[in-house]
Amino acid sequence: MSSASPFHGLSAFPATPANIDGRVDTEALGRLLERLCEAGVASIGLLGSTGIYAYLTREERLRAVKAAVECVAGRIPLIVGAGALRTDHAVGLARDAEAAGADALLLAPVSYTPLTQEEAYEHFLAVAKATKLPVCIYNNPGTTHFTFSRELLQRLSDIETIRAVKMPLPVDGDLPGELAALREKTDLAIGYSGDWGAADALLSGADAWYSVVGGLLPRTTLGLAKAAMAGDVDGARRLDKLFAPLWQTFKAFGSIRVVYMLLEHLSLARAELPRPLLPLKSADRQRVLEIVEPLIALEGGRKS
Amino acid sequence: MSSASPFHGLSAFPATPANIDGRVDTEALGRLLERLCEAGVASIGLLGSTGIYAYLTREERLRAVKAAVECVAGRIPLIVGAGALRTDHAVGLARDAEAAGADALLLAPVSYTPLTQEEAYEHFLAVAKATKLPVCIYNNPGTTHFTFSRELLQRLSDIETIRAVKMPLPVDGDLPGELAALREKTDLAIGYSGDWGAADALLSGADAWYSVVGGLLPRTTLGLAKAAMAGDVDGARRLDKLFAPLWQTFKAFGSIRVVYMLLEHLSLARAELPRPLLPLKSADRQRVLEIVEPLIALEGGRKS
Repeated sequence: MSSASPFHGLSAFPATPANIDGRVDTEALGRLLERLCEAGVASIGLLGSTGIYAYLTREERLRAVKAAVECVAGRIPLIVGAGALRTDHAVGLARDAEAAGADALLLAPVSYTPLTQEEAYEHFLAVAKATKLPVCIYNNPGTTHFTFSRELLQRLSDIETIRAVKMPLPVDGDLPGELAALREKTDLAIGYSGDWGAADALLSGADAWYSVVGGLLPRTTLGLAKAAMAGDVDGARRLDKLFAPLWQTFKAFGSIRVVYMLLEHLSLARAELPRPLLPLKSADRQRVLEIVEPLIALEGGRKS
Repeated sequence: MSSASPFHGLSAFPATPANIDGRVDTEALGRLLERLCEAGVASIGLLGSTGIYAYLTREERLRAVKAAVECVAGRIPLIVGAGALRTDHAVGLARDAEAAGADALLLAPVSYTPLTQEEAYEHFLAVAKATKLPVCIYNNPGTTHFTFSRELLQRLSDIETIRAVKMPLPVDGDLPGELAALREKTDLAIGYSGDWGAADALLSGADAWYSVVGGLLPRTTLGLAKAAMAGDVDGARRLDKLFAPLWQTFKAFGSIRVVYMLLEHLSLARAELPRPLLPLKSADRQRVLEIVEPLIALEGGRKS
């Protein structure tokens, strides 16, 4: 357990290295996490979307959590994704994470049949009640296909252990307006995902950046996060510009496909995307490699 | 095994009665299926969206298939939903269904990370190759969050065992235009779901109606399907009008929530929706019951 807030600053979301059958490589995962600890990120978001939680069995998710706790416990707060289609499964995953020593939960309203606002509320309530861990609401309609109303976020923020929300970038781009509205209605710590908008979000006063690139290039990402949180507009813009071409590939190919190919390029892990997801084609890989080279150099070179 | 085409005429999609923990009540399922056989529907779509396939474990899905084969084998073709988020899971489910005696597969491109067209193609190819069963493509962006391009449907139709597609109603309402375009590009049997548009689809020459209401009120639904397939516009319109208020409740509440409450009302089964899905509230239930009463009377009264 770490006593620092898991919901403030740069939260790095690593991949979960696994083989083609969905068996997690706990050693490789440990290496990824060690790198994040050494860089000094504020928290780790294990088993987020990039961490392929949706594609792993309960057993493999528990193996990943245990390996992560062993690696990072007491050093950096560990947030664990507990999302599942069924409420009882999400409750089980939350209890697994707590028993294994996680510091916090990230909960996505995964859906197949579209959920009503009330159904999402009851789902969150059941999972929140199942453990003592603080919960971050995972709000990402692009993968969960659920849209939170402001009223629902307000109701959820009244549940004692629900402490934070991970927001998608606002469609209208009005970060200050959205932050003001959410702060008026809730007492949640408010963070953003969507790496390309994170500098703006932090400069606008957001509490956290839930970052995919932070799971891969933690030192450089932390530099950007710190500049933006310190209000250093020029410094943040300069780093943001260096990342921009990589983020274009995130948008073009999906960040998960880019991250999994780069794990191998960085000699961090051999990790398979869960099929049906496919590796990038050769020409696209080449494009990503050229784009990422300066960032790798900045990060401190390739491990080998 | 039944030798009739599973992809022509009225395909009835029943609920899968299960308890709150997702344990299938195979006896109650048998009663639902017996009712469909007696009504003489053209095929049964087991473990479709209404059949909560997405919320059941592999073990429970296999129990449901075995119970269904025992009930309907040799009488009516049995189409079994094999959709899963992971390709290897979908392959396993398809093999389970074949080994248990299913006649055909229904395959949905379930997604979390949005899939590319190529990823969906490879997914379908892997599952199609895993068994000898004919496959119907499940095309329903509302639940799977995947949109098939016409080119992808054309490529899929070139895979030998992929024989049919279950389409959502066209957004622009142009059924004849869509049917003509699909028939030009593919040799798939073309059916529609979205009960409220099915009469129009069949009148426009569609091959099949994949029907939620057909799993609940099979005799009346079959009457509508037969009128529409015979080109009896007046007869079809008259029956369609009787169903219309029920279909309004499908649109307002989600057909799955309406169907599960009516199972109990019709004394067919005690069946729980998988949480986080919630039963309708009392006032909404009341509204559905009033609306459905004439249809129940037409169907042949309540069993008790």
